[in-house]
Amino acid sequence: MRGYGMLSVNNPGWLEKERPTCGPLDAIVKPTIIAPCSSDTHTMHGGSGPKENLILGHEAVGIIEEVGADVKRFKAGDFVVVPCCTPDWLELGIQNKITFSHDSKPFGSFKFLGSKDGVMAECFHVNLADANLAPLTEGVSPEAALMTVDMMSTGFYGVEMAEVGYGDTVVVFGIGPVGLMAIALAALRGAGRIIAVGTRPAAIEIAKAYGANEIISYKDGDVVQQILESTGGGVKKSIIAGGNAQTFAQAITITREKGNIANINFYDV
Amino acid sequence: MRGYGMLSVNNPGWLEKERPTCGPLDAIVKPTIIAPCSSDTHTMHGGSGPKENLILGHEAVGIIEEVGADVKRFKAGDFVVVPCCTPDWLELGIQNKITFSHDSKPFGSFKFLGSKDGVMAECFHVNLADANLAPLTEGVSPEAALMTVDMMSTGFYGVEMAEVGYGDTVVVFGIGPVGLMAIALAALRGAGRIIAVGTRPAAIEIAKAYGANEIISYKDGDVVQQILESTGGGVKKSIIAGGNAQTFAQAITITREKGNIANINFYDV
Amino acid sequence: MRGYGMLSVNNPGWLEKERPTCGPLDAIVKPTIIAPCSSDTHTMHGGSGPKENLILGHEAVGIIEEVGADVKRFKAGDFVVVPCCTPDWLELGIQNKITFSHDSKPFGSFKFLGSKDGVMAECFHVNLADANLAPLTEGVSPEAALMTVDMMSTGFYGVEMAEVGYGDTVVVFGIGPVGLMAIALAALRGAGRIIAVGTRPAAIEIAKAYGANEIISYKDGDVVQQILESTGGGVKKSIIAGGNAQTFAQAITITREKGNIANINFYDV
Amino acid sequence: MRGYGMLSVNNPGWLEKERPTCGPLDAIVKPTIIAPCSSDTHTMHGGSGPKENLILGHEAVGIIEEVGADVKRFKAGDFVVVPCCTPDWLELGIQNKITFSHDSKPFGSFKFLGSKDGVMAECFHVNLADANLAPLTEGVSPEAALMTVDMMSTGFYGVEMAEVGYGDTVVVFGIGPVGLMAIALAALRGAGRIIAVGTRPAAIEIAKAYGANEIISYKDGDVVQQILESTGGGVKKSIIAGGNAQTFAQAITITREKGNIANINFYDV
Ligand SMILES: [Zn+2]
Ligand SMILES: [Zn+2]
Ligand SMILES: [Zn+2]
Ligand SMILES: [Zn+2]
Repeated sequence: MRGYGMLSVNNPGWLEKERPTCGPLDAIVKPTIIAPCSSDTHTMHGGSGPKENLILGHEAVGIIEEVGADVKRFKAGDFVVVPCCTPDWLELGIQNKITFSHDSKPFGSFKFLGSKDGVMAECFHVNLADANLAPLTEGVSPEAALMTVDMMSTGFYGVEMAEVGYGDTVVVFGIGPVGLMAIALAALRGAGRIIAVGTRPAAIEIAKAYGANEIISYKDGDVVQQILESTGGGVKKSIIAGGNAQTFAQAITITREKGNIANINFYDV
Repeated sequence: MRGYGMLSVNNPGWLEKERPTCGPLDAIVKPTIIAPCSSDTHTMHGGSGPKENLILGHEAVGIIEEVGADVKRFKAGDFVVVPCCTPDWLELGIQNKITFSHDSKPFGSFKFLGSKDGVMAECFHVNLADANLAPLTEGVSPEAALMTVDMMSTGFYGVEMAEVGYGDTVVVFGIGPVGLMAIALAALRGAGRIIAVGTRPAAIEIAKAYGANEIISYKDGDVVQQILESTGGGVKKSIIAGGNAQTFAQAITITREKGNIANINFYDV
Repeated sequence: MRGYGMLSVNNPGWLEKERPTCGPLDAIVKPTIIAPCSSDTHTMHGGSGPKENLILGHEAVGIIEEVGADVKRFKAGDFVVVPCCTPDWLELGIQNKITFSHDSKPFGSFKFLGSKDGVMAECFHVNLADANLAPLTEGVSPEAALMTVDMMSTGFYGVEMAEVGYGDTVVVFGIGPVGLMAIALAALRGAGRIIAVGTRPAAIEIAKAYGANEIISYKDGDVVQQILESTGGGVKKSIIAGGNAQTFAQAITITREKGNIANINFYDV
Repeated sequence: MRGYGMLSVNNPGWLEKERPTCGPLDAIVKPTIIAPCSSDTHTMHGGSGPKENLILGHEAVGIIEEVGADVKRFKAGDFVVVPCCTPDWLELGIQNKITFSHDSKPFGSFKFLGSKDGVMAECFHVNLADANLAPLTEGVSPEAALMTVDMMSTGFYGVEMAEVGYGDTVVVFGIGPVGLMAIALAALRGAGRIIAVGTRPAAIEIAKAYGANEIISYKDGDVVQQILESTGGGVKKSIIAGGNAQTFAQAITITREKGNIANINFYDV
C-alpha cells in the first residue's frame, strides 16, 4: 500500500507499507477526499518528536472498505467522515474526565500523527468504528464535511475553552480556517463584539462575513496597542488560532483579570 | 402626593402620602411612563404578605426631580430608566455573592413591592442613584427602555440560570412578555431548537419572530407527552416563565438528568 | 442458573434462568458479596414499570468466571468491583455529554434493574468489562468496596450536583447510607456547616462522625421552620437523599435564590 | 502628617503630607499594626509606573479616628481590619462583573498603591467604610487579622481561580505566605495531592503542616522534570505564588490540556 509522509524529520516522500489489519471493532477506510493541515507540517518538522517512516494526514472523508465482526453501525461501502481525533473510548481516561478527549495522555487520541499512520494513503485504519466514525449525512458535500473534522471542531473548541458568551467582546488571533471557525461560533454564541487579528485580504473578507466586527493588522501599528485602545484596556476572552510565542505574550497582555485565553495553536519548533 | 396601590390585600385604590425625602446618595424620580405587571397583581393578592397602604408599580422610566448632595452621575431634569430591583450596594450581601442581586435576603433588592412605595405615584424614591439608575440612551424610546427594567431582564435571567448555550434544545413555558424575552436571548445565545409552550395567537406570532422553532399548546393534547415525543425523551434546559404548580411538575418531567430548570415565574397565592 | 427477583410487580421469588452468554468485550461475574438497596424495592414495587421475571440486585463484588476474547485488562479468576451503572461507552450519548453517565436515555446505563438481570444470582453479565469493571484493590476489603458501587458514588454525586464548595452551608435530607456519604464528601470539599435532617440515633452518630455539625429532626418540630431559623432564612445547597414529595417541597422552601437542589432520591410509587 | 514611602522610583524615604479629609461615606483610620509586602517593593521599583511622593503600605489593622456623616456600621474608636483592595461599590464595574473586584479597570480597587497614599502613615483614608471595613472580631488577634487582608485572600483567590476541587492534584509554585495560604485552602477544599515548589526549610515545614504532600526544590534537579515524573505527565491545577517569567513557563509545561493556571504573582520589573 502506498502513502505519503515523512521518511524522517524534514524528509518527506512516498512510503510503501503493509495494508493495516482490521480488529473486531475497527474499520479500514479508503479516503475519497483529504485536506493537508499545518499540523502535518509541524509533525514533519519534528514537532511530535523524531518520527520515522510515518504516513501523514489526519483530515479525511472516505468509503469503508472493511469493518470488524463487532461493528454495528457501519458496513463496507458506507461513506464516512473521519474525525482527526479517534479516542479509545474504553480507556479509563475517558471516564475520569482528566483528559476526556484524549484518553489518558496529552493528545493521546490524536492517533494519526502520534501513534499510527495517517490518511494520506490508499487506505487507513480507524479504531472503534461505531464510536469514532460519522455517516456522511445526505445533503452535506464531502468538501463541507471535510472541514468539520479539524478546522471547525478545533475552532469551535477554542470558543468553548474561552467560554465565549452572550455580549462578550472577543479577540481572535489568526484568521486561517481555524480562526475563521472560531469567529463563526463566537458569533453564533452571541458575542457582542468580535475583534480579529489578521492581514490577508481574502481572509479578512470571510472573517467579516462570519461575524468579525473589527480587524486589527500589524500593518497599522502595534497589535497590542491597537487592541488596548479600541477596547479601553483589554478584553475578557482571547483565542489564539495562529502565531508564535509573541502572539501568546500579546494575548496575556490584552486579556483582563479573570479572563480566559484559549490556545488552539500548534507552535512550530 | 397621590399614588395608586393597595389599601390592604385585595383592596386596591388611590392613596394620599407624604412626598418621599431624598438622602445624600438618593434621587426622587417623577415617572413619565410606567407598566403594570403581574407581580403587582400577585402583591395585591397578598403574595408578599399582608401589605397595607402600599403604592404599587415597579416598572418606570421618568425624569429626576431631585438628587442628594453626594450623587455624581445624575442631576435634576435627567431622563432615567429605573430597574425593578434597586440593591443596596453597600450591604454585605452584595460582596459575599450569597444573594448578589438581592442584598442580604430573598428578594431584598426588590424594594418597590417589598419595603417601600412603588412607581405608580406622582414621584418615587430611588436609593443609591449613581448605582441604580441608568440614563435614557439617545435613540432608545421610553417605551422600549421601559421593557428592559423587568420583562427583558427577568426573561434574560431565566436563560442565564438555565445556562442555555450553543446548540441546546430549550423549552420555554409561557409566552407572555417575560417568556418572549427568554426566547429572544436563547436564540441570541445560539440555542439550536427552541420549543415554546403557549396558546395565544398574537404571542405565538411574536415567539416565532423571536426565534421559537416549535409551539406546543395544551389545545393539541397533553403538553408533557407532546414535548417528550418531539424531543425523544426530554430536554436539558427548561425555563418556566408562567403557569402554576402543574407547570413546575411538567418542567421536572420533561427535563433530563443533570439538566437545568430555571423558574422565573411568580406563583400566585 | 438460579437468581432472586420479581416474578411480577410486588411478587418476589426465586427464578430459574439460562446462564448469560459472554460477548467478545464482556465478562461473566460470580458475586461473592452483594448488598440489597431501596432501588431494588422500588423496582419490585413497579417503579421502573411492569417488569416480569427479572433478577434483582445491582451492588456486587465478585470473581470473574469468563471474559470475552477482546477483553484486555481482566481474566477469569480476578476479583472485581462492579459499579451499579455500566454504560455502553461506544454509544453516542457518551460523546455528546447529553446523558454522559447514562448512554442515550434517562438511566440508560442503569442496566441491572432496567434492561437486564441483576446480581442476585449465581452469576451475571457485565458489558464492556475493560471499561466497566475495577480490580479489587489490595488492602480494600470486599465489604468496603461494595459500599462504593452505589452508596458512595450516589452520595458523592449529590454533592457534585449541588456544587458544594469551601465554606458552604449545606442541608442533607436523609441520613441513610447515601445521605451519610453525601455528608462525608461535603466535609471533604470544605463545607463550612453541614445540617443533616434525620432521626435514627445510630445514623445520627455516624452523621456527626462524618462531618454533620447539626441534626434536625421532625420530632423537634417543623423541619422547614427549624432550618429557616437556624440559617437565617435558608441555604444555597440542598441534597435530597431520602424522603417523599413533601421532602422535595421542603428543599424548595429552604433553598435560597440561585441555590442548588440535588435530588439523589428515588421516590417510591 | 508623616508617612513612609517613595519619593520617586527606587528612592524611598519619609514623606510629610496633609492629613486626608473624610467624605460622608468614608473613614480615617490610624494603623496599630501593619505588614510590609513584596507588592510595596515592586511599586517602589516602578512596577505600577513612575509614582512620586507616594506613601506605601496596604496591609493594616487599626483604630478609626473619624467617620463620615453617612457611615452606619462604624464609629470613631472602633478597631477595624482594612482589606488591601477597597472597591468603589457604586461604580458600574461592580455590577457588570467584568472586573468585579476591581471597579472598572485592572487593579482599580487596589487603591493604596495605585491611586492614593497607603497605610504606612500616622493615619490613612478608607473609601466607603460600611462596605470596605470589617470589625476586628472578638478572639482574633490583630496579628492574625492582619494576615487576612492580603496574604490569605490572595492565596485563597489563587485556589479559587484554579478551581481546585476534591481529589485534584495541585502544584503550588512558591511557599512564601501567599503560597502557604494557597496550600491551606487547597487542602480545605479536598485536594487529593498538593505539590509545593520551594526551598527554604522553615517554609517547607509550614507547607507540610498546611497540607502539602510533596516538596519539589530546584536543588534536587530540574523542577519541571521532577513534577512531570512524579505526576505521570503533569497536573490539571497550577498556582503561581512566586517566581519570575521562567516560573510561568514551567507552569505552562506542567499543566495538562484543559487545566487551569492561576497566577497570583506580581512579576517585578
Ligand atoms: Zn489538522
Ligand atoms: Zn414586573
Ligand atoms: Zn443501590
Ligand atoms: Zn500585600
